[in-house]
Amino acid sequence: MTAEARIREMFASVTQAMHDKDADALLADTADDVLTYDLAPPLLTRGLDRNGVQEWFDTWDGPIEFEVRDLEITAGEEVAFATSLNRIGGEKANGGGRSEVWVRQTTGFVKRDGRWTMTHRHESVPFHMDGSVKAAVDLRPDGE
Amino acid sequence: MTAEARIREMFASVTQAMHDKDADALLADTADDVLTYDLAPPLLTRGLDRNGVQEWFDTWDGPIEFEVRDLEITAGEEVAFATSLNRIGGEKANGGGRSEVWVRQTTGFVKRDGRWTMTHRHESVPFHMDGSVKAAVDLRPDGE
Repeated sequence: MTAEARIREMFASVTQAMHDKDADALLADTADDVLTYDLAPPLLTRGLDRNGVQEWFDTWDGPIEFEVRDLEITAGEEVAFATSLNRIGGEKANGGGRSEVWVRQTTGFVKRDGRWTMTHRHESVPFHMDGSVKAAVDLRPDGE
Repeated sequence: MTAEARIREMFASVTQAMHDKDADALLADTADDVLTYDLAPPLLTRGLDRNGVQEWFDTWDGPIEFEVRDLEITAGEEVAFATSLNRIGGEKANGGGRSEVWVRQTTGFVKRDGRWTMTHRHESVPFHMDGSVKAAVDLRPDGE
């Protein structure tokens, strides 16, 4: 299997794990020492946080929709990175109503012991520099 | 020169180019088809925008401070990515006063025709998910 095919498979597994709200499945291909630049503060986290993932899953009622668009994979023999636009959507728990946001994701991979492993994930939305410094959570890939 | 040494050199050049507000120097190692996930909307841009860089430079009085911290480079033979925390600071033009922000950056590189080239740049700050959706522009690498 090519690196690209394997990495596409990993994104498909993540989509399924988000739908199932299965933290173990979500983190199956993630390195123990993963460096994460997440949507929410702090600036960075290092390492796996299964409990944190499960707590986040619990803020949603029912399945989480995860759509990966414009996935581009740049892969060498031992190192690869991927870029994509991801839609995260669903019903928030406790009557929080429908939530949907498009985010940019850059993901880094290293082949460790013959196995592609995710060592870095960077997810973000841009923010408005008009003084409001509001996150631009309403952008869409088309017609922004 | 190793890939890591070359990429560190590229970050040093960017720091100098920011100080000098020299758009050509800033973009010297950037691919014509670079995919950028920038701090400000839109979600993404593709390709070089020298005029946009120069316009952004002109929003600052005097040199732009650019400090790169915690630079980690993961490099193979043909593909590499880097993560870092960058401080962007200085005096805004038109009496805008002092501005300073720490951002996370993930950068993708491909060796093209024997030369390491930046093909992807993703810069962001996280945002508060407390309803304000404000960008967290006041975080610091220590003591956040």
